[in-house]
Parts: sequence; structure tokens; C-alpha cells
Amino acid sequence: MARRGGDQRAVRVAVLGCGNVGGGLVALLLADADGIAERSGVRLELAGVAVADPGRFRPGVPAGLVTADAKGLVMSPDVDVVVELIGGIDPARQLVEAALGAGKAVVTANKALLAAHGAALARMADGAGVDLLYEAAVAGAIPIIRPLRESLAGERVRRVMGIVNGTTNFILTTMAEDGVGYEAALAEAQALGFAERDPTADVEGHDAAAKAAILAGLAFRCDVVDSDVHREGITGIPASDVAFADRLGYVVKLLAVGERAGEDQVSVRVHPALVPKTHPLASVRGVFNAVFVEGESSGELMLYGRGAGGVPTASAVLGDVIDAAHNVLAGTAAPAPARVRARLQPMEDVRSAYYLSIEVADRPGVLAAVAAVFGEHRVSIRSMEQEGLGDEARLVFVTHVAREGDVRATLAGLEALPAVDHVSAVLRVVGEEGSP
Amino acid sequence: MARRGGDQRAVRVAVLGCGNVGGGLVALLLADADGIAERSGVRLELAGVAVADPGRFRPGVPAGLVTADAKGLVMSPDVDVVVELIGGIDPARQLVEAALGAGKAVVTANKALLAAHGAALARMADGAGVDLLYEAAVAGAIPIIRPLRESLAGERVRRVMGIVNGTTNFILTTMAEDGVGYEAALAEAQALGFAERDPTADVEGHDAAAKAAILAGLAFRCDVVDSDVHREGITGIPASDVAFADRLGYVVKLLAVGERAGEDQVSVRVHPALVPKTHPLASVRGVFNAVFVEGESSGELMLYGRGAGGVPTASAVLGDVIDAAHNVLAGTAAPAPARVRARLQPMEDVRSAYYLSIEVADRPGVLAAVAAVFGEHRVSIRSMEQEGLGDEARLVFVTHVAREGDVRATLAGLEALPAVDHVSAVLRVVGEEGSP
Repeated sequence: MARRGGDQRAVRVAVLGCGNVGGGLVALLLADADGIAERSGVRLELAGVAVADPGRFRPGVPAGLVTADAKGLVMSPDVDVVVELIGGIDPARQLVEAALGAGKAVVTANKALLAAHGAALARMADGAGVDLLYEAAVAGAIPIIRPLRESLAGERVRRVMGIVNGTTNFILTTMAEDGVGYEAALAEAQALGFAERDPTADVEGHDAAAKAAILAGLAFRCDVVDSDVHREGITGIPASDVAFADRLGYVVKLLAVGERAGEDQVSVRVHPALVPKTHPLASVRGVFNAVFVEGESSGELMLYGRGAGGVPTASAVLGDVIDAAHNVLAGTAAPAPARVRARLQPMEDVRSAYYLSIEVADRPGVLAAVAAVFGEHRVSIRSMEQEGLGDEARLVFVTHVAREGDVRATLAGLEALPAVDHVSAVLRVVGEEGSP
Repeated sequence: MARRGGDQRAVRVAVLGCGNVGGGLVALLLADADGIAERSGVRLELAGVAVADPGRFRPGVPAGLVTADAKGLVMSPDVDVVVELIGGIDPARQLVEAALGAGKAVVTANKALLAAHGAALARMADGAGVDLLYEAAVAGAIPIIRPLRESLAGERVRRVMGIVNGTTNFILTTMAEDGVGYEAALAEAQALGFAERDPTADVEGHDAAAKAAILAGLAFRCDVVDSDVHREGITGIPASDVAFADRLGYVVKLLAVGERAGEDQVSVRVHPALVPKTHPLASVRGVFNAVFVEGESSGELMLYGRGAGGVPTASAVLGDVIDAAHNVLAGTAAPAPARVRARLQPMEDVRSAYYLSIEVADRPGVLAAVAAVFGEHRVSIRSMEQEGLGDEARLVFVTHVAREGDVRATLAGLEALPAVDHVSAVLRVVGEEGSP
């Protein structure tokens, strides 16, 4: 049997990239090596830090450890574990492949790389018998990858729903709580450093889609890439519908959803959704993240915490580095079950309840005409509220669970009605009793 | 390097005890062995089930697998992993020791055993180079042990606060939401099967104290036993104070708390506390459980889910069995860092904010006299509300953070005041900005 304890050799760690997360990790490794050894039972030693500009002054990092030669550092016989924190596809992919090819464990927080090439890299790691760990790639400091991979290893997961993008959750929380519109909330997020000057990757759901692919791949033991993910962002959500949802008992959240559909299909998507205020996801405010998991045996689980930030994310990377280091010393690796290519459910077949907010002319007979369109397409109405808007009225419907294709046909029918001015919002409603 | 995959031999699992959790696990192992093998990459085979009365009919369990000879099953050369689900100290302890002594991995959900003898058993497992895993011992299906043990292996945890007893959380939720008293809420819990006929172990905090000891031991890498845990139950909480807390923006929760105190002390305690409604723990309703973790690098994390129930708890046991099975095949074991005996902070030195509800005679000068007692003992008042109760008045104070010893002295002083009728509730306030 392999033994464990503090009397073993140090494990040598190379860090590629020294931005927020890399800098946080390097600081932890340099400042708290003894504390880490005491708490974890494994001694870590920083072997080197690869950066684009080694001339730049990095307080606290010995100049002798800094190099521009990432590939050289990866291949150094002196390195056991490679931590890739460069981000993006190239050159991160080549460096990770080089490390795995050389039989070294890899820890990465690179969601873009994993969402595009995760399955191939996992096969490489498996073939080499080394770890490829990426707890920090989804939802920062929150332990979600390890629970999905290990605690729920035998569980048949029905659905994962995550608030995995702090920028959009901050914007939506601000819209709901301060009663402001999208543009004002975005400006506040930018002023506070929670949104980029070009917020596209966040607000259009690209970031969340990469994370959805990773989560669904793990939850359903299948291979999902980011381009498989149906994606809707938050830019078109009117403040009036956020307020109306609030009065109906809901909050609007951008969700990354993966769910089983029948025996052999999965649905993976990112879209805004109405969540009942009594649902645990509703209490996730501001830049916090959370992932809600529904397992057949486990029931409902939620994992909550900081989804971003250099130091919290570095803490998740450190957990992986320690895990990989234990396995290096024991000469083993984390188990990685085989994955099959996912069969994706077409969006038309996805089933959900819906919130529809429709501006109509305020005259007799309009409601009957609108209701007839729903009936025609077999979309059953659960509740309706009407409010006056001058000469116009707003009709807000919440439907029973319906097929997306039927809802789309209903929308087309509604938009063709002369009395309908426009459909202001169509949002899925999730997390309620009786949901599929 | 050790390899993994589906082409290895089956790992043989013995289950001791076939109650709710054991029965749930046996059903999963018998009904879904192929699914588990596909999802986890390891094939599990039920080697036997030890029960007190093998003559009782257990639907679906082949009679040939059932035995009354637990010790014989444990020692059978045919068994790789022993799952102890008998509960209590004896004979569970002897059986776990026999299994570890024979070099077999042990999975248990036995909080009483772990809270009393966890450190000694962990040393035995470490000495034998085998796993001792117990994800299901705290908070049922929620992955909390593995995140604390692995994801946060290098993290300096400041505090863990758990809602780890579903019975008391159901009672407190019912008191708050239905406006009923303790007795009525307990009766409802009993009627629904959420509370025992003799609810002492739950309502007096014994169950939560065992879990607090386990959580604190893992979070702070030290050895805490259940008798170390300061314990206060929920039987004395007046409905009026639950309602008053609600108006002030709080919910009352029974919390299992472990926190670092200075460099070398920990405080471990179970007591009811006021939690702000904006705090993630406030949204944990009914029989659900959650554990909130504050780490120096990770920031705030919360893990939420079903804390009890046969099938959800069996799902957590299964995750451990799979983990142990992978390690059996790889000839290794989960790392278990050394632990030191905890130095416990005396309760008098614990620092917290407090809610005090005091019934006083409604006459001039009383508030000044009461306030003077607070001042005398250096307990600073953050807010005060007064409401009439006929000839009496109720004064409700929330203090700034104060030393427990000073609050106790304040209480003694208040009770000695002629104008004070009685102190109806003294509850700690946690989870607010500016808390220690």
C-alpha cells in the first residue's frame, strides 16, 4: 500500500501565467508553504513561473524563478505538476499537451480550452495515467468539479443548473433590487470592475456556455463542447419584466442548464430564466455563483460561493495541486471514466414553463384572440395578469410546461395578430413544483 | 502508473446494517450495478449484508447474501470494502476496527462513532494504508466532508457554520412561517415523521454536536470529540422572539459552529442563533441542511442539500464506496494529514453579537437602568426596540460584538434589577458585516 504523510519529498510545481489567479497561487505557495504542508500533508515547492514579460517586477516573486520559456519549464525534469493559468486556446493547449505527453499532472482553470478540447485532453491524461484537474474552471472557489466527479460518481444526475457568471448575476441583481434598466446596471458593473469594457463574452452568455459544456460533460459522463450549447444572453431583458417577475414571486437569473432528456439525449443551454423566490438559486445575489444539482438518489444539492477573483480562484487551484501532488507521490491518478459523445436534444423538443409578456391594444376581445393562439398550439396557460398602459395593455402569461417548438409557434401566431403590439419578453420558468 | 477503467476486477462490498440507509445502498448496488460501473468506471459487487435478524424478509435482497455474522463477513477474504451502517458505538466500533486491522477500506455514516473515536480510527486507517471515508456522517447527501478534506486541503479555514439537523430546522422554520410555538411545531414534525417520539437527541443539540465535532476536526485538522462541544438546544425559544427576530430581519437557526480563535485555539459549539435574512443560511428551510464555510483564500462557500433520508444518504455512501474501490484497485488510499489535539477556547472568551429580549415594568427610568448594566460590563448596544405589553414593556437589544463572559455578567446584572421581570431570550447573532 502507498503511504502518505509529511515525510515525503517535496512536489515541484510550475505555474504558467501570473495574472490575478497565477499571482494569487504563487503568493500562497511562497508565503504559506509550511502551513499548506501541515494542513494537507504534502510539501509543495514552486519550481518556476512562466510569463510573457519576465522583466516586469512582481513583488515577492524571486527573479530566478521567472522565465519566458513556458515550454522549457514544462519539460524540465525538475517539474512534477504543471498549472496552466494562461487562458485561451493557444498556446495553452500546446503546453498542456506537452505536459501530459511528458507524464506530468496538469491543473488548469482554463474553461475555454476545456470546453473546446476537454475530452481529448482527458483521454491524453488517462492514457498517460496522470491527473488533469480543473476545479477552478467553473465557478471559481466553489467545489463543484470534485463533487460531480467523485461524490456523485455513481449518481444518475437529472439536471444541473448554475449561476456561473458573476457579471450577469450582478447586473440582474442590480436591475431587480434597484429598479434600474440593463444599461444602467451594466454601467454600474463596469464602474465596480465586475464587467469588462466590452462585456459581450459575459452578457451574451459565451462564458456561461463554456462552463455549461464542462458541467454537463461531467454530470452526464459525456462529451459536450461549447458550440453544442444553445445560448441566449441578457441584453434584451426589459426592466419592466424584471419588476413584473418580482411581483409574481420570481427573480430573473442567467442559468447554465444541463439536463437529461429521455434515455440517451442531453440538453445543454444558457438562457435567462425566472426562478421562484423560494428556490435556493434565487438567494444567489451579486457576483456570487452557485450550481444546483438534481440527482436521482441524492435529491437536490446546491454549491455556492465566489465565482471569480484571483485569491478565491487560486484557492480552488491549490486544492487541485495538492490532490495531484498526493497522486504523484502515490504513483496514481484520479479516476476518469470513459465518456461518450453526447446526443443533443433539439431545442424545439425542450420542455419548460414559460413567462410571456405581451403588449396589446386595450380593447374588448383581445384577450380571447390571444388565448386562442395559445390553445391552437397546445400551450396551456397557468396564470394571466393584465395591466393597463394608456391605450395599451400588458398581458403577462405563465404557461404550464410546454414544448419549446409549440411555444415558438405560439409566438409567431401572436406576432401576427393585429391587436398585438409586441412581445416584450419570453423567459423560461424553472425550479417550480411540477416542472419536468 | 496505476491505470483505471472498466476492464478491472469487481470490488466486493460488505454492508453492515440494512435500515433506511443500508437498504437504500443495497438497492442501488443490486439494481444499478451496470449504470454505476458505466458512470464511475468501477464495478461494485455486493458480497453480503449483515443484519440482526436475517430471517426478516427484505424484498429484492437474495437470502444467500444475508447473514447475522457481521464479524465473519468483515473478515471474509472475499470482501474489499466494509460499509458500516449499524450506528452507535458498539458493536460498530469493534467491526470497523476489525476491518481496518484486516487492511480493508471502511465507509461509515456513523456520526456518534466518529465524534467519539474518529481520531483513533483515522490513525488506524492511516497505519494500515486504507481508506476511512464518511461523507454521509454529516449532512446526508451533501458533499461536505470531501470538499473540506480535499478541495480545501490547503486552505486556512476561519469558520464553519452548519444547519446540520433537519428536525430542528423544520421546527424553527414552522415556528417562523406559521407563527406557532415550539410545542405545536414539534408536534407537526412528529406527525410528519421528521421528529422522534423522544426528540431529545435532536432538539437539545446532541446530534448537531457530534456533527460539529466532525466538521471542526476536518476544517481545522485537529481532534475534537463530541464532549468538547458547547451545546444549547432550541426548546426554550419563545415564539414571540422568533416573530420579533423576523421583524428585525433575522431568522432563528440552530447552528453547529466551529471557528479558529487566535493562533492555536478553536471554538466548537451548537446553539440557536439569529441569521440575517440576506445570509445564504437563512434560505435553508424545513428539513434541508447546509454548511457554510469561510476560508481565508476561498472566501465564503455554502453546500446545501438533503441532510437525511435513506436514499439521499445512501447516495453519499455510494460516492465513498466508489472512491474506496478506485483506491483498492490502485493500491492506495485517500491522504489523511496528521491531526493534533484541539485546544478549545473557553466559552467565556467567545466573541459574538447578541440579541436580548427582556420583559420589564413599563415605567420611566427603566431603560436607563437597563442600559447602565450593559455599560458597566462593556457590552455596547447596537440597536434597541421597545414595545408595550400592558403594564409591562419588552426591550429588545442587539449588541455589538462582545465577549461572552461580559454578556453573562450583564445578564446576571439585569436579572438582579427590580424592574426586570425576566430575560425571555438571549441569542447570538451571526453572519453580519463587522462580525468577528
